[in-house]
Amino acid sequence: MYIKKQFLLCCFLVAGFAPRADDGYRLWLRYDKISSTTLLNKYKTAIQFPFVYGQSATTDIIKDELNNGLSGLLGKNITSNKTTAANATLLCGTPIHSKEIKALYNELSLINAGDEGFVIWTQFINGKKRIVIAANTDIGVLYGVFHFLRLLQTHQPIENLNIISVPKLKLRMLNHWDNLNRTVERGYAGFSLWDWHKLPGYIDKRYIDYARANVSVGINAVALTNVNANATVLTKPYLEKVKALADVFRPYGIKVFLTARFSAPIEIGKLSTADPLNDSVKNWWNEKVKEIYSFIPDFGGFVVKANSEGQPGPQNYNRTHADGANMMANAVAPFKGIIIWRAFVYSNENPEDRHKQAYNEFVPLDGKFSNNVMVQVKNGAIDFMPREPFHPLFGAMPKTPLMMEFQVTQEYLGQATNLVYLAPLFKEVLQSDTYYKSKGSTVAKIIDGSLDNHTLNGMTGVANIGNDINWCGHPFAQANWYALGRLAWNYELSSEQIADEWLRMTFTNNSSFLATASKLMLQSRDIMVQYSNPIGLHHIMGSGHHYGPAPWVNNLNRPDWNPVYYHKADSIGIGFKRTVTGSNAIAQYLPEARKLWEDINTCEEKNLLWFHHVTWNYTMKSGRSLWDELCWQYYTGAERVQQMQQTWSGLKQFTDKERFEQVKMLLKIQYEEAIWWRNA
Amino acid sequence: MYIKKQFLLCCFLVAGFAPRADDGYRLWLRYDKISSTTLLNKYKTAIQFPFVYGQSATTDIIKDELNNGLSGLLGKNITSNKTTAANATLLCGTPIHSKEIKALYNELSLINAGDEGFVIWTQFINGKKRIVIAANTDIGVLYGVFHFLRLLQTHQPIENLNIISVPKLKLRMLNHWDNLNRTVERGYAGFSLWDWHKLPGYIDKRYIDYARANVSVGINAVALTNVNANATVLTKPYLEKVKALADVFRPYGIKVFLTARFSAPIEIGKLSTADPLNDSVKNWWNEKVKEIYSFIPDFGGFVVKANSEGQPGPQNYNRTHADGANMMANAVAPFKGIIIWRAFVYSNENPEDRHKQAYNEFVPLDGKFSNNVMVQVKNGAIDFMPREPFHPLFGAMPKTPLMMEFQVTQEYLGQATNLVYLAPLFKEVLQSDTYYKSKGSTVAKIIDGSLDNHTLNGMTGVANIGNDINWCGHPFAQANWYALGRLAWNYELSSEQIADEWLRMTFTNNSSFLATASKLMLQSRDIMVQYSNPIGLHHIMGSGHHYGPAPWVNNLNRPDWNPVYYHKADSIGIGFKRTVTGSNAIAQYLPEARKLWEDINTCEEKNLLWFHHVTWNYTMKSGRSLWDELCWQYYTGAERVQQMQQTWSGLKQFTDKERFEQVKMLLKIQYEEAIWWRNA
Repeated sequence: MYIKKQFLLCCFLVAGFAPRADDGYRLWLRYDKISSTTLLNKYKTAIQFPFVYGQSATTDIIKDELNNGLSGLLGKNITSNKTTAANATLLCGTPIHSKEIKALYNELSLINAGDEGFVIWTQFINGKKRIVIAANTDIGVLYGVFHFLRLLQTHQPIENLNIISVPKLKLRMLNHWDNLNRTVERGYAGFSLWDWHKLPGYIDKRYIDYARANVSVGINAVALTNVNANATVLTKPYLEKVKALADVFRPYGIKVFLTARFSAPIEIGKLSTADPLNDSVKNWWNEKVKEIYSFIPDFGGFVVKANSEGQPGPQNYNRTHADGANMMANAVAPFKGIIIWRAFVYSNENPEDRHKQAYNEFVPLDGKFSNNVMVQVKNGAIDFMPREPFHPLFGAMPKTPLMMEFQVTQEYLGQATNLVYLAPLFKEVLQSDTYYKSKGSTVAKIIDGSLDNHTLNGMTGVANIGNDINWCGHPFAQANWYALGRLAWNYELSSEQIADEWLRMTFTNNSSFLATASKLMLQSRDIMVQYSNPIGLHHIMGSGHHYGPAPWVNNLNRPDWNPVYYHKADSIGIGFKRTVTGSNAIAQYLPEARKLWEDINTCEEKNLLWFHHVTWNYTMKSGRSLWDELCWQYYTGAERVQQMQQTWSGLKQFTDKERFEQVKMLLKIQYEEAIWWRNA
Repeated sequence: MYIKKQFLLCCFLVAGFAPRADDGYRLWLRYDKISSTTLLNKYKTAIQFPFVYGQSATTDIIKDELNNGLSGLLGKNITSNKTTAANATLLCGTPIHSKEIKALYNELSLINAGDEGFVIWTQFINGKKRIVIAANTDIGVLYGVFHFLRLLQTHQPIENLNIISVPKLKLRMLNHWDNLNRTVERGYAGFSLWDWHKLPGYIDKRYIDYARANVSVGINAVALTNVNANATVLTKPYLEKVKALADVFRPYGIKVFLTARFSAPIEIGKLSTADPLNDSVKNWWNEKVKEIYSFIPDFGGFVVKANSEGQPGPQNYNRTHADGANMMANAVAPFKGIIIWRAFVYSNENPEDRHKQAYNEFVPLDGKFSNNVMVQVKNGAIDFMPREPFHPLFGAMPKTPLMMEFQVTQEYLGQATNLVYLAPLFKEVLQSDTYYKSKGSTVAKIIDGSLDNHTLNGMTGVANIGNDINWCGHPFAQANWYALGRLAWNYELSSEQIADEWLRMTFTNNSSFLATASKLMLQSRDIMVQYSNPIGLHHIMGSGHHYGPAPWVNNLNRPDWNPVYYHKADSIGIGFKRTVTGSNAIAQYLPEARKLWEDINTCEEKNLLWFHHVTWNYTMKSGRSLWDELCWQYYTGAERVQQMQQTWSGLKQFTDKERFEQVKMLLKIQYEEAIWWRNA
């Protein structure tokens, strides 16, 4: 197998050169030489001799990353373990492989670090200092090393370190909606990274750099394939390919999941049914799972979309989601696998309000799922809108671990061409109060399982990664991959902090740049909402592309696929009445959570048309009528995109020409799209 | 529009560093610092002050390329026009923009350089020297500059230059079989470069680097779209996108062509017919062409695949290929456009020998095509086989300019995973003697039009380029793009010279490396033939993939789609009898050309089973029976791939780790495939 060690050597010698072309391939792991001489000298003195304990594929990775990262950042060749551990100024390891670190176990509070957490600590010995990066596992050390490199990349002081960092969620995941023909559903950055034709024989260097990027932000699980699943991936030739990827990802602490097509026993197993209570079906899955684990002993499990948008599922056999999930859970249980069952369900009948369906189907099943099943819930009840109240399932299924599903790919947020920083959206949802146990029962606390002592917990993002050279299409879309990982590790990080980190690592530590670019990012999602779906409007996109506006679309097969279904515009007003006199979807929220929304006078204007049908002449807080306010929002949104263009132009001196021009062209397109939304 | 100037700055400062990671993106335009100090100093002294005359988009490109190339190669910052022309040591320009060059017009023999040729000449003035790169057009100068940079990249002496280079063919083209959904028919390097969704607003840097690579090898035309055409590309929104690409390519001297779907007047024009003699149809094409030229004033014209493999064409209306081609030719004539009509035709009936069809259909039309029509002929009569006698149309249509169609993408030559250098295949065809006017009427002389004084002439290659980071999937596949361009410019270059140039520019000038790697390349096509289609066998590939062997396939709809149709194996022998007692396809060649082939005793063994059905116990020159010889060839071919693996392993010290590992993995796959062929 092919592990590339020299990835970063190309560039560190050119540091000091005024901003040079950057194709974006390196993401936030650029490791260019520290630009401040004072800081550089401090770092050089402090770091000098790194030593890494242990002998494993993971410790090899730690050494490579340290050598490359430090050599780049410090502008001189640095090689780990050139000195003894006793002389090291930077000591990395676990208590298992290092007596020194074992001796410091209590001082380092390693008991609190768990399997994945780490400690970074400045040790004072006889007036000398050394930095210790310690963890209970090699993977923990790897996380620590990336954190330490980030401190340098972001120009933080390292004189007196005392950091302990433990992930708040166990499963920090990416869902790739990648098809076996390499198209990506809702992918806007080229095509799938997974080159199935050349696998397993050819290991693309991107697989390794993808793993590096993931572990650097804390991601530890990936579902390789689309939730609209193809059973072929479960056949032997494909399992050999999946194994090759799992082998690459394993030393980075990343587990592989696959999506399972519920009807696979029929399609590739030649059975006549996929009924989850049928013995042949159970047996087929048991044997298939055994086969998978023979290739991938640490296989994560299945992600399943069933009985939704035409996908087969247990309801085809009059069984429940729990019947289906438990049958699969039973198959993977002996191998410690789990089943992630998606709650995003659309029945084929026409529901009175799509908002209500997942809740109606899943709440009655609470307590009926096996203990190795998680139910994966989208952040909102409709579908990854630019703004959406939190999903009412959060706080409504106490006996079931709920996994958060965010969408990193910008299906409804301008796709590849719009600069929209998603951390504020993620944070808005995570901080929403469900009032499940009391005030402060935020969505974040539901998904971390702490309120009900769940042992399984996690967060996933639908990936925005493709084979474009810069991975995500838009240079700023990389920030959303970054933010998903960072928030899954620690949802208490602020959007500001994440943007600041990412900008420093991806562009420059220049403070003028940071002040301006950070503002650009932090406002961007609000601006997108403003020019596309203001005041709680939703799903007014064109149906084929989910990209631009098409509020006039009214010719689709199902009422709830039509934009007019959602904005309910008529001669009197606009908005979807979900209060007690409407669909009453609002009743799915706990009384405290919904209190403000229920009354048109207390409902925040940002959610107004989500819950209420409002007359065109309704007076908004601004004093404008609803109609005028809508116009004002659309116009202001478009104007603000123009301001984004100007702001970016002012940052030219700080950025390399290549990415500067890319973002400039994209903002121009974004402005044209904002005008398109406005005029629609 | 976005022209990136800093593309190459990243890397030149790291020269001197032992072979470092290279992702292959830079192709043969790497411009790393000259490794020999002696040579470096000579070059530095000689070049010092470049000066470029002229003020156009093309001269801007010339300056950028010179600055980047020289700065990289010489390891110091070099900027053109920092001195006056009088003090310049390297002077570039045209007689139009430079009095000095005008004054040298005769001495430089610029009269012989034509529109695209160039002169590179060492001028001696008062005991001092300066290098002059001159041409009659800016584009000519650009070609000259790339040639000059190649001299440095390949470590050639520049003390006393006296080079005049003029392309032997006017149209030096790539045909992209790229679909609008970005899949590529027979593309094995990812997906289409053309990101139609983001065009025209977003100009991917790859478009510029693609243009640079093309002009560096002399390519001056591209057909953007698949010959299995989609009429949508002719609609206004797409023409705006095509215009954006044409605008990028224009200053590089590259003209854009599109493929025209013959039934476009029905599909996007809402006509009821596409009959080429129908006035509404003619008028539709006239108007459509006018519209195209309003976007792209120098649009090249159309490439058309008609009445072949289910594509619509004039025969649907009982018209001839000439009727169809001339109708379109008439539409583009006022704008100096041309029509390139493909001769690759398969009728829907089952022909007795597919080999004969193109000849039978096209020879009677010789003289009936308008003078702005070219007929594009594949190199052989079947279909881009690993080895194939030249197409009998060459030399059989004296009144029609024939364009050569080679396949750079390795549809039948191992696709993305096999190292097969195609220059020997191209050369074998170009040097084949048609005996059209006399001995020496090679295919090359047919296509350059010299034997019949055609004003149009050209060569195209079906591109092997995709959005993989290294453009072509296999690092060595880049050599085939390079070779196609170089041979289209000058078909007299040898395979050896082209391999040597490419290796020096793409890997290293180290002589040990070159001796070994060059041999590896030059043998590779013979080896491929040996383990896949030896002794004139052909088309025994699996039908869906065209990739690996499937000689047993006998279940397709048409006999000529079945491998057994081509190898005709039975209890007595194997081979396709095309002599007078067989299909008599051989009669399509002129008597002198076919003489040796006709007699089983004089036919070269490499073409034996192409023309003859040979008994299994037939004694070959080796003394082995045919059966034993076949086995021997397959075994030897596979063994030789193993030797290729060993050879490559020995080159580790000379190559960067990244490409070394890539090629190593791919050769392993190639070996497994050779075994697969052998066992089949």
